[in-house]
Amino acid sequence: MRFISETSSDGLREQLFVLTDVPGVLWTPAADAAGPRPLILMGHGGGRHKKDPDITRRAHRFVTECGFAVVAVDVPAHGDRPLEEEYDRIASENQARVAAGAELAPLIAEFQALVARRTVPEWQAVLDAVQRLDHVGAGPVGYWGVSLGCGLGVPFVAAEPRVRAAVLGLGGASASTPTSTSASAEAAARITVPVEFLVQWDDERVPRDRSLALFDALASPEKTLHANPGKHGDMPEFEIDSTVRFFARHLSLT
Amino acid sequence: MRFISETSSDGLREQLFVLTDVPGVLWTPAADAAGPRPLILMGHGGGRHKKDPDITRRAHRFVTECGFAVVAVDVPAHGDRPLEEEYDRIASENQARVAAGAELAPLIAEFQALVARRTVPEWQAVLDAVQRLDHVGAGPVGYWGVSLGCGLGVPFVAAEPRVRAAVLGLGGASASTPTSTSASAEAAARITVPVEFLVQWDDERVPRDRSLALFDALASPEKTLHANPGKHGDMPEFEIDSTVRFFARHLSLT
Repeated sequence: MRFISETSSDGLREQLFVLTDVPGVLWTPAADAAGPRPLILMGHGGGRHKKDPDITRRAHRFVTECGFAVVAVDVPAHGDRPLEEEYDRIASENQARVAAGAELAPLIAEFQALVARRTVPEWQAVLDAVQRLDHVGAGPVGYWGVSLGCGLGVPFVAAEPRVRAAVLGLGGASASTPTSTSASAEAAARITVPVEFLVQWDDERVPRDRSLALFDALASPEKTLHANPGKHGDMPEFEIDSTVRFFARHLSLT
Repeated sequence: MRFISETSSDGLREQLFVLTDVPGVLWTPAADAAGPRPLILMGHGGGRHKKDPDITRRAHRFVTECGFAVVAVDVPAHGDRPLEEEYDRIASENQARVAAGAELAPLIAEFQALVARRTVPEWQAVLDAVQRLDHVGAGPVGYWGVSLGCGLGVPFVAAEPRVRAAVLGLGGASASTPTSTSASAEAAARITVPVEFLVQWDDERVPRDRSLALFDALASPEKTLHANPGKHGDMPEFEIDSTVRFFARHLSLT
């Protein structure tokens, strides 16, 4: 883990780092140096990056209001990472299939499952490295990710026992049938930690029945679906308040 | 409006009253006499009454944490009110229809619409009377009611312009078709205030598609559906916290 820069402002310490070839950012409280503290790993959306405003606004609140550490890294082919020829090829093929009448959502889900084969071990390595730092330590871990961050987050949360609570959403799965289960529904069925699941009721990218099917597939005894009117990008501000309280409730050390 | 008794404990002043022939209870902060303050009208569930534990636990929190006034009255044929032969007759007929294979949920909805023809004007008279009291006053009004309290609450909130925010749920509507709309969906389409809508994902009394159809029918630009696993009676405790914050956000005087 190689640190590239460090700045502090507004009560936040921000450290940019590279772990192997994965660029990341770690935010911690500026004033309070000693860990262990709860850590939230955040997964960004498609076409976005580790310091996207959707990430940084929430990270700021998790750090300043809860005293948590937050880490985010660029997904392959996003942010400061190189393009991936294979992903470009698949994206072009998918565009052609949709133009020929195929349904978009299952193609996206299939693509995200492919990317997750890389991000799950990458994110586990990030947890290993960050939790070895004195100002983070081995506290409880949370995961936050919607849209692409949900598609990659479901297999991550399913695979990683350190994650104790997750906020997911703006993502879906095929409804299971007696003879077939989608990859995301299968991974969701291995998640048992508390989940807050966000749905945009008029989501133009994720059909409503796919959202409900993914929520339905989660095996968590405590899971809450929050649905709000509006499109994929219209999530209301008050859901950030709810997310802060959800993580505070499930990750606090006391 | 005739007051029958008054007690104070735990920071709450509780006054039992009768308005015409409707028995009610009013809770206000014991220490802080002067209004105006926000007022929440609460509708109890089927077979329950104005001082049901589901009502009193929430009322206690609205009063002590938010400084609100809370009023609840017995629905016809409930609590301290006399039996209604007509309702008993309909209930028997409905049991016979269900035994003969009819679907229960639409029959319940039809029955609730009948009862609402009485409760809407009764509850409006309660607001009139209570808001004339010095220790309540004409502040913003909220409505809380699930199950029967939702079935009666939807037409009440639709009809009463003083209501500025409502918590509803554990109730449903038929999905609208081009040629037919259910009474509850029609009333929901006249509701435009912020709504927090509670769904039990495995509700044995309200089919999931009817819950989602009622949420869908609400015309409110701000409406949030909260769905949690479990049956009709299994709503998790943390939803009470969310309700307290929802009303505090929408009804506070400052």
